[in-house]
Amino acid sequence: MSTPPFPKALAFDVFGTVVDWRTSITRESASFLAAIGHGTIDAAAFADAWRAQYIAAMIGMRKSGRDFAVLDVLHREMLEAALRERGIDPSGLDEGLLADWNRAWHRLDPWPDAVEGLTRLKTRLPVVTLSNGNIALLLEMARRAGLPWDAILGAEVSGAYKPDRRAYLHTAEVLGIAPGELCLVAAHHGDLAAARACGLLTAYVDRPDEYGGAPAPDAHHEQAWEWSAASLTELADQLGC
Amino acid sequence: MSTPPFPKALAFDVFGTVVDWRTSITRESASFLAAIGHGTIDAAAFADAWRAQYIAAMIGMRKSGRDFAVLDVLHREMLEAALRERGIDPSGLDEGLLADWNRAWHRLDPWPDAVEGLTRLKTRLPVVTLSNGNIALLLEMARRAGLPWDAILGAEVSGAYKPDRRAYLHTAEVLGIAPGELCLVAAHHGDLAAARACGLLTAYVDRPDEYGGAPAPDAHHEQAWEWSAASLTELADQLGC
Repeated sequence: MSTPPFPKALAFDVFGTVVDWRTSITRESASFLAAIGHGTIDAAAFADAWRAQYIAAMIGMRKSGRDFAVLDVLHREMLEAALRERGIDPSGLDEGLLADWNRAWHRLDPWPDAVEGLTRLKTRLPVVTLSNGNIALLLEMARRAGLPWDAILGAEVSGAYKPDRRAYLHTAEVLGIAPGELCLVAAHHGDLAAARACGLLTAYVDRPDEYGGAPAPDAHHEQAWEWSAASLTELADQLGC
Repeated sequence: MSTPPFPKALAFDVFGTVVDWRTSITRESASFLAAIGHGTIDAAAFADAWRAQYIAAMIGMRKSGRDFAVLDVLHREMLEAALRERGIDPSGLDEGLLADWNRAWHRLDPWPDAVEGLTRLKTRLPVVTLSNGNIALLLEMARRAGLPWDAILGAEVSGAYKPDRRAYLHTAEVLGIAPGELCLVAAHHGDLAAARACGLLTAYVDRPDEYGGAPAPDAHHEQAWEWSAASLTELADQLGC
């Protein structure tokens, strides 16, 4: 493969790429499940079920015809559905507890290399989010984890969820650059494939523990991406940062 | 006045409040005017004329019925109008030069207290922009000047220019807080008055040199704001940051 053009900005997928959603959501769900008297439910399986609904919803969002709603709203609906699947009626639970549980997505811990990797990449390139998370979620996460974003972009700013083309193309547009000057950094082949179809550059970061060692649901989208690294610090090495 | 409630986030006006647009635009315009053979034109008066068009446009934007266009586009139209007012036909000028001149708004220098003030305020509260500047403009400015925003919000994210109510209310909404939990920080009484009419808290920062010592065009909107400071570091003192 010839040397790819050097990007003018890096846009990051966040859940799974920058932060380890499964460990955080499992830990918090274990605590909340215990608090409602259901401590025997497998918290990791509960986290996986919650996340699986999200993945299905994002793919189906455009076809659904539903007006745009921020991810905090969708996460809450999915939490209630995951509870009902386990025979728990959410309407019988304390509203403050449910709201706090839902905000566990604002409190995800970064992968160990994330803060150092982003800080190094930022010295040479703008680093922005291109996430389906809403602004309040990503802002609170960034302040708690120390993620040094130059701007919080993505679904809420663009009014469309990945993998909708508008999410990728609008992000390049607001940055004032061409799609081919923007590089998506993601741990997900499906996300990268959608970005490439819009003309973006692509950088894969391997996160083998994202699903607790289980295979990723989008492995069949794997391609030869412009960059491929085992961590964000390794990506910084590759980009000379 | 009783003690105001402590805000949950600070949203900043940028042009004039955080950065000194007049000194930077005067310096750059002097250079560009010289480059096109008009070095005798008063560059400070040219900067004032360019900015005056902006102020008039923002106030008239909603009434105009014009679809939302980002500030880079409007600044360019205003630059060409300012040139024509001085008998210079912009269609005879080099496109690259005009584009670079317009991007002078991306290269504004901060007031001397801005970076330290924002950095201190950020330790206790989210600090975001609530500016009519577009995302690319504010991002480039922030990277050049070292402004540590938690998020870049404002007109482009909200799809409405201040003083339109939507710009203030939508910013609180995306932060996931009530209007009364958000504090606008601005050097402009007109901006603060519009924010207060939407229920926001208000903090005034005095910038007597914004117009080169000339009176501000919105002085008649002055009220007793919740906070009033001579600099962002003084505001940090007042907020215990």
